[in-house]
Amino acid sequence: MALFSKDIRTMEDLFMHQLRDIYYAEKQIVKALPKMIDKASDSDLKTGLRHHFDETKNQVTRLEQVFEMMDGRAKTVDCPAIDGIIKEANEVIGDVEDKDVLDAAMIAAAQAIEHYEIARYGTLIAWAKELGRDDCASILGQTLAEEKAADKTLTQVAEARVNVTAAA
Amino acid sequence: MALFSKDIRTMEDLFMHQLRDIYYAEKQIVKALPKMIDKASDSDLKTGLRHHFDETKNQVTRLEQVFEMMDGRAKTVDCPAIDGIIKEANEVIGDVEDKDVLDAAMIAAAQAIEHYEIARYGTLIAWAKELGRDDCASILGQTLAEEKAADKTLTQVAEARVNVTAAA
Repeated sequence: MALFSKDIRTMEDLFMHQLRDIYYAEKQIVKALPKMIDKASDSDLKTGLRHHFDETKNQVTRLEQVFEMMDGRAKTVDCPAIDGIIKEANEVIGDVEDKDVLDAAMIAAAQAIEHYEIARYGTLIAWAKELGRDDCASILGQTLAEEKAADKTLTQVAEARVNVTAAA
Repeated sequence: MALFSKDIRTMEDLFMHQLRDIYYAEKQIVKALPKMIDKASDSDLKTGLRHHFDETKNQVTRLEQVFEMMDGRAKTVDCPAIDGIIKEANEVIGDVEDKDVLDAAMIAAAQAIEHYEIARYGTLIAWAKELGRDDCASILGQTLAEEKAADKTLTQVAEARVNVTAAA
């Protein structure tokens, strides 16, 4: 962030800034997921997280596509939000011993990540449309649909078994 | 966070931990909103944020009620997630000069905050029910409904005028 100048002047600047923010976030999520997959006990949770790990790598590629379509080099800006969300996830996960309670804590952490992405992609799609870039909005829309589906799957896994077992 | 012990043993411990996390988060949001209200230009955005500021203070009180019902003293734990989300909001807001683009950036920031809360309250409600505490779930459900409504209002304000003006 610039200290002495206002770097974001137009809506397109703001869009590009937000794109770099979520690009950084997705890369951090790709780094964070393997640890969560490793620590998960419930088999549906493990499978769901693994599937989402593959999706997330694909989402990084989609963002690179959007950068290209906007004639911009794919680059990141620091995203204190995702850093904080992942830090909090690691802290809670490190504080739980019981494997069922740990699964419940990990679902909560994963859903906080999903919701951050749902908010960001929702905004990016609205801005892309306003900028007349329906082509970018359409690509970002594919990712938003995946994030919403991942969030729903996590809720199902939690309600079907993980929360019940953890509270037993 | 304890460094040498596993502090969260049961689902109830996890629930109480998450309650303290969102209690801290709500208090930070109460501190952050006045600056956003002050910087907003669009009158519907200003009104919406003001309304949500009042709601948020009430949500803090509701959490204190739930602490009491759980026989626990209302206390906070650090929540790096909300700290990161608010830090990011302040950085972006500080980097935008144009008042219309700033309004669009602030709506995005507010929606990231809303989505964090939607994720957390959704989890807390599911856990409360699993713990046989429908009474707590019901109170937390009132807040969740408000967060979802606030998110929807922000989308409406963005789509009806703010994004259009900012991209013009």
